[in-house]
Amino acid sequence: MALENISANRSFGGQQLRYRHQSSVLNCAMTFSIYLPAQVDNLPNKLPVLYWLSGLTCSDENFVQKAGAQQYASKHGMAIVCADTSPRGEGVADDAEGAYDMGLGAGFYVDASEQPWAEHYRMYSYIVDELPALIGAQFPIDNQRAGISGHSMGGHGALTIALRNPTQFKSVSAFAPICSPLNCAWGEKALDGYLGENRTTWEAHDTVSLVSRANTHLPVLVDQGEADNFLAEQLKTELLIEAARRADYPMQIRLHPGYDHSYFFIASFIGEHIAFHAAALS
Amino acid sequence: MALENISANRSFGGQQLRYRHQSSVLNCAMTFSIYLPAQVDNLPNKLPVLYWLSGLTCSDENFVQKAGAQQYASKHGMAIVCADTSPRGEGVADDAEGAYDMGLGAGFYVDASEQPWAEHYRMYSYIVDELPALIGAQFPIDNQRAGISGHSMGGHGALTIALRNPTQFKSVSAFAPICSPLNCAWGEKALDGYLGENRTTWEAHDTVSLVSRANTHLPVLVDQGEADNFLAEQLKTELLIEAARRADYPMQIRLHPGYDHSYFFIASFIGEHIAFHAAALS
Repeated sequence: MALENISANRSFGGQQLRYRHQSSVLNCAMTFSIYLPAQVDNLPNKLPVLYWLSGLTCSDENFVQKAGAQQYASKHGMAIVCADTSPRGEGVADDAEGAYDMGLGAGFYVDASEQPWAEHYRMYSYIVDELPALIGAQFPIDNQRAGISGHSMGGHGALTIALRNPTQFKSVSAFAPICSPLNCAWGEKALDGYLGENRTTWEAHDTVSLVSRANTHLPVLVDQGEADNFLAEQLKTELLIEAARRADYPMQIRLHPGYDHSYFFIASFIGEHIAFHAAALS
Repeated sequence: MALENISANRSFGGQQLRYRHQSSVLNCAMTFSIYLPAQVDNLPNKLPVLYWLSGLTCSDENFVQKAGAQQYASKHGMAIVCADTSPRGEGVADDAEGAYDMGLGAGFYVDASEQPWAEHYRMYSYIVDELPALIGAQFPIDNQRAGISGHSMGGHGALTIALRNPTQFKSVSAFAPICSPLNCAWGEKALDGYLGENRTTWEAHDTVSLVSRANTHLPVLVDQGEADNFLAEQLKTELLIEAARRADYPMQIRLHPGYDHSYFFIASFIGEHIAFHAAALS
């Protein structure tokens, strides 16, 4: 699992790094970004880590450039790993009409069973298995102290992956997550395409469904802007609030007046998310 | 001076706004961005303001998206106005070969006297006169409490403009400024193009020259990364350090090991710059 360094920039006393590697799970070359705070030099202690999953049309770079998370990772001595949002490159299928919500940039963090997606679109296994193994092998990262977070489609990814792997991820948070792909147009299109028409197979990738059957309760923090244009039709935070209430699953779900779906929203609250994960992973 | 709002995003309790307006000085439509912290609602107090000038190839958006300044502006109750880096639009001259360091995105904050630039390239007058007048007329901004800052070409702009207008701007800071256009390839190309070959006219736009004849001493903060690829050939911080020493002009000029020319550098120290201006403008 050789890594090729693409860029390195000093940031808040640490290093913002970007790498390319060949993914065997996705069967293509992938990029990821990792922030290593200055505390990385204080060996032998390994660092706790937050995995970040981005939303539709994003790559591993948006969060790095716009969220302003490095200052908080520096403060708390935490690494942040940012993944790409789909497989990439020549031979990787894309939506026939180039839609932004299917195919490239829109992997939805599932392992596709359907054609033409099944050969490369296995973002669930990439995030759960291959990427953490690579990170743990190549960096002084303690995957026993790992949290996961994300935005929109990536919030859906973070919540579903954490709920299905509550011993691997010790804390989970999300900004404006797609709470129930079973109940919105984005989710129905993607899961029908990647997983096929049998909706019972979708439930393993639906946060609302997973909450109702959760045996382990992780620390959960969800932030949602009330001025988010996607709230009513795609995100449906109210379904998550209701599911958590019914399942007696304690979650911090906060609604913020005036905030929209942008990185300006994420930047405004990412400090509280990093502190939340740092507390859970300490 | 009608303003057209282009975007509005809540950020750290305030508003990140973007506008378009017709500039009479530049003879074209221009955009600018302004961050108004929540304190703007506490009338009748007007807000202190920091004017930000960006570098080559940038617009008014780079700083807004990447610097993470809003949290500090929110904390200190300061507005931040980000200007574009050149005139724009149909009929505005650009470099014949599309070079990144001349023409569009590269106004160098001078009033051009030469062809084909003179009709539109008057960024000095735009930043000193037209933009502050517009801001003061349209927003609850106190231009009597104004600082100015910038990056690279914009650091050159901030320093030269403040040194020439030390009653209008009460504090000045810069990240990786071009310290002496008279003594670097970027500066020689731009000033020769915009101002003509008589180098004595360039001195009014050369920080090192202006420092040597300054009668008023402003609070000055300059940050420079030692791993900046442009330091030796284009920025030449050592000329500014030497000029300030000779002129007995007290300046904070800080060299930071490992930091480069990117916004990761700016983001790491913008909090200290905002605090510096807030203290000077309080």
